[in-house]
Amino acid sequence: MRILLLGDIVGRAGREAVAERMPAIRERLALDFVVANGENAAGGFGITERILSELTRSGVDVVTTGNHVWDQKETAAFIDRAPRLLRPVNFPKDTPGRGHALYEAPRGRKVLVANLMGRLFMDPLDDPFAAGEAILAETGLGRGADAVLFDFHAEATSEKMAFGHAFDGRVSAVVGTHTHVPTADAMLLEKGTAYLTDAGMCGDYDSVIGMQKTLPIQRFVRKMPTERLTAAEGPATVCGLFVETDDATGLAKRCAPLRVGGKLAESWP
Amino acid sequence: MRILLLGDIVGRAGREAVAERMPAIRERLALDFVVANGENAAGGFGITERILSELTRSGVDVVTTGNHVWDQKETAAFIDRAPRLLRPVNFPKDTPGRGHALYEAPRGRKVLVANLMGRLFMDPLDDPFAAGEAILAETGLGRGADAVLFDFHAEATSEKMAFGHAFDGRVSAVVGTHTHVPTADAMLLEKGTAYLTDAGMCGDYDSVIGMQKTLPIQRFVRKMPTERLTAAEGPATVCGLFVETDDATGLAKRCAPLRVGGKLAESWP
Amino acid sequence: MRILLLGDIVGRAGREAVAERMPAIRERLALDFVVANGENAAGGFGITERILSELTRSGVDVVTTGNHVWDQKETAAFIDRAPRLLRPVNFPKDTPGRGHALYEAPRGRKVLVANLMGRLFMDPLDDPFAAGEAILAETGLGRGADAVLFDFHAEATSEKMAFGHAFDGRVSAVVGTHTHVPTADAMLLEKGTAYLTDAGMCGDYDSVIGMQKTLPIQRFVRKMPTERLTAAEGPATVCGLFVETDDATGLAKRCAPLRVGGKLAESWP
Amino acid sequence: MRILLLGDIVGRAGREAVAERMPAIRERLALDFVVANGENAAGGFGITERILSELTRSGVDVVTTGNHVWDQKETAAFIDRAPRLLRPVNFPKDTPGRGHALYEAPRGRKVLVANLMGRLFMDPLDDPFAAGEAILAETGLGRGADAVLFDFHAEATSEKMAFGHAFDGRVSAVVGTHTHVPTADAMLLEKGTAYLTDAGMCGDYDSVIGMQKTLPIQRFVRKMPTERLTAAEGPATVCGLFVETDDATGLAKRCAPLRVGGKLAESWP
Ligand SMILES: [Fe+2]
Ligand SMILES: [Fe+2]
Ligand SMILES: [Fe+2]
Ligand SMILES: [Fe+2]
Ligand SMILES: [Fe+2]
Ligand SMILES: [Fe+2]
Ligand SMILES: [Fe+2]
Ligand SMILES: [Fe+2]
Repeated sequence: MRILLLGDIVGRAGREAVAERMPAIRERLALDFVVANGENAAGGFGITERILSELTRSGVDVVTTGNHVWDQKETAAFIDRAPRLLRPVNFPKDTPGRGHALYEAPRGRKVLVANLMGRLFMDPLDDPFAAGEAILAETGLGRGADAVLFDFHAEATSEKMAFGHAFDGRVSAVVGTHTHVPTADAMLLEKGTAYLTDAGMCGDYDSVIGMQKTLPIQRFVRKMPTERLTAAEGPATVCGLFVETDDATGLAKRCAPLRVGGKLAESWP
Repeated sequence: MRILLLGDIVGRAGREAVAERMPAIRERLALDFVVANGENAAGGFGITERILSELTRSGVDVVTTGNHVWDQKETAAFIDRAPRLLRPVNFPKDTPGRGHALYEAPRGRKVLVANLMGRLFMDPLDDPFAAGEAILAETGLGRGADAVLFDFHAEATSEKMAFGHAFDGRVSAVVGTHTHVPTADAMLLEKGTAYLTDAGMCGDYDSVIGMQKTLPIQRFVRKMPTERLTAAEGPATVCGLFVETDDATGLAKRCAPLRVGGKLAESWP
Repeated sequence: MRILLLGDIVGRAGREAVAERMPAIRERLALDFVVANGENAAGGFGITERILSELTRSGVDVVTTGNHVWDQKETAAFIDRAPRLLRPVNFPKDTPGRGHALYEAPRGRKVLVANLMGRLFMDPLDDPFAAGEAILAETGLGRGADAVLFDFHAEATSEKMAFGHAFDGRVSAVVGTHTHVPTADAMLLEKGTAYLTDAGMCGDYDSVIGMQKTLPIQRFVRKMPTERLTAAEGPATVCGLFVETDDATGLAKRCAPLRVGGKLAESWP
Repeated sequence: MRILLLGDIVGRAGREAVAERMPAIRERLALDFVVANGENAAGGFGITERILSELTRSGVDVVTTGNHVWDQKETAAFIDRAPRLLRPVNFPKDTPGRGHALYEAPRGRKVLVANLMGRLFMDPLDDPFAAGEAILAETGLGRGADAVLFDFHAEATSEKMAFGHAFDGRVSAVVGTHTHVPTADAMLLEKGTAYLTDAGMCGDYDSVIGMQKTLPIQRFVRKMPTERLTAAEGPATVCGLFVETDDATGLAKRCAPLRVGGKLAESWP
């Protein structure tokens, strides 16, 4: 299966870049399935129902999130009727929405997508390693799923690399999100899992992690509160990881970064 | 000037890769000046005097460090007689060693190298933004320095991007270190500073940030202490940023990532 | 029932103070049950099997712990045969030892003791609020237990007060440990739970949280590693909370701090 | 000199308790000088100019603050014309307001008050230990000041105890604020400085650190955003440390906690 996982879509710039470029990307890469992290799609803060359907109409099959999932008040209300929207699975029991689900891909294939959140330097949730194990205890490669994709929304590179290796050989891909900067370490791990520490944002890189840069710099320099941050509006780079899986095993045969548009050097898988 | 900045060299694997490849890299890129972060050169923990001279003999002109600078007991004792070794400038006053210095490059040119440490998700030091300003108040591009290189050793992408923009147009390059994963956002900022969020480590990427992976995974999964971590020993990738500066202004004309050897996809500037 | 909960016993000074004073304290307060936190009993770092039996011989019925539980290598090996030693219940599944148990008190009464760890500013474990609920789903006041005691080992006052109120009316006492400084807010919460943000350490207060003060001060001032810290050896203050429960309901009728010996002002319930 | 230092005043409940009780407290303790931390005086968030003058009219001579100092927009605008209002001294250079000042006490005596902020588990500012040294390099006991009072606004007990010992014998008192829970470790340090890890809040203790308890509990349990927190409105306890200094040396002869009103056990020095 030919799969694309996109990093955090930030604001209008990010959304428009995804909407405009997705048709060409889907075609050029002959994609079967697209996951994108949408936790910053609404002006940098969360996601609305309208934006969710905008994204799914753009060709995104599943939208994951992270620590910003509840930034928009409406999200907790609509998430239960939004099967394509995931929130981190390791939130407390009784949290609205779901953290993983099985989706249909072309030709009857099934894709398990799970959204998990790291804990190092983040608000502590329950153990994401145990959460990953619990998901795989129910469904896995060759056991109901033709591909298994983990969006690991986390800050620390140590936790992310450890997470990748912990599930190596049991999932198709572990792709990090949250830092809003793409890493250049796309690789196949030893036992066949595609791995990238961070997919990077789909957003304007002439910014501070997607937000207009004046106020964030002021916060670091002056240590005083500022007005609310606003998303940067320059041309966005669409960033993600392309993964080709072996339909027999569900493991990855190849992975390579996608970066197109905006400030960053272009890269096609 | 043609400059290379390498990320954290981790353990013997990292050192050997740098030593073996540096002659060819220096030649192919026609380098004038090389900076490398050596805070993990001694088995993953700090740097010794012997390793420092190994690195400088390999063709590294200046060795920067970070939070691991004092991991080896001997470092505080020898650092004052090691002009090519820097430690973060924003340590407390009276800290042994120095955080920035002016170095000679070929044809009489002067390179100011400064090592600064971020504070978000790290042990708090004094303000690195103010420290950068204080350095530039004394020496700068056109004022004693033909190139100014900031190694910003920091965890959070937000602090790193803010730092880059804060000094944009006033230094030749801001290159992040510390996360041990190269980012794919090499770019020229608006006013001419070369920027990369993280140079990535010079080390074995089949690992958890350069260390053999079993114990780090166990720490996350079991939450119990383990034996001391040891550096991974597989083939290392040499990772860094190439920057070409304009000798007239000292600003960057071009920058591009270097990645060679080991698990990561090769990239030549 | 007349119950005493003691805070973190630090080093030899703390152990000796507890051993010497416990007989008089037990008698004067006519105690039925004593819990003490022993995570720093072995020179400030963890607890050994020998020290555990020293403590239980001193008149401590149950020894709780916290983030330092595994500081001594032997602990993971002996904890499974030490029914009176608890470690935080919200460690990962398969962690050696147990986090809560039902103990016998005089006249056939049963005391449920649970050890839980907070997450704010600490290494993240699984949700302690959910862990507390899970314990109470099995056993509770009037449902197998005549008293229920929660040692909440946590850093932040906000998490501790929230934890107290979350279990108010359902447990006999929530007593905080970990900060090594006694708080002066002993109170009965609205629905009958005795509460104290932190019991304080049983240790020498002419120190930095129980350790000889020179090196900890140096660490803050110089930001360089030091030799290993050693426990302060001056006269220790025994610190804790006395709770008198109503045998009919298991809730608290009265609570008041105990502080005796050493540098702190004496306080008898 | 007879001095009282009060902890963080939280909301209307805290302000009213201070206003009502201060006359009786001033008289009973024959106070010469009163310092109170006002960072949460305005509904839990910051301080306004009107509230500041309310506090000074109540008999508070100097109002210190902390991390919440800028919660009210107007504060940065009026602080420069408010000589009795301090903000942490170790904010960046060019921060509005001042972090320490010399004040007049009865009979021509001078009191140096300094407000410093810790860094462990807090937003990192510049080194508070170095900031304390810099203040004392200019003015000190017997060198322009008859008493020197340090409000150390910090989270971690280790940093607070280390800070106390670091300035022992050179200042009259080091009193911690910020945790909103009074500690029971009032003591004279070895060389004559009065010390208390935390003064505790002046606020309603039937709360989560002064705020109505439902929403804070929900935040811990559900890990979702809530409405803005509001200050608890029940009867407040006025909490602080009484210090009596020796006019000859400026050091402390005696110190003891004050706790009066509300839920906590009353304590008069
Ligand atoms: Fe994000
Ligand atoms: Fe995020
Ligand atoms: Fe490093
Ligand atoms: Fe580092
Ligand atoms: Fe402890
Ligand atoms: Fe602890
Ligand atoms: Fe406060
Ligand atoms: Fe505060």
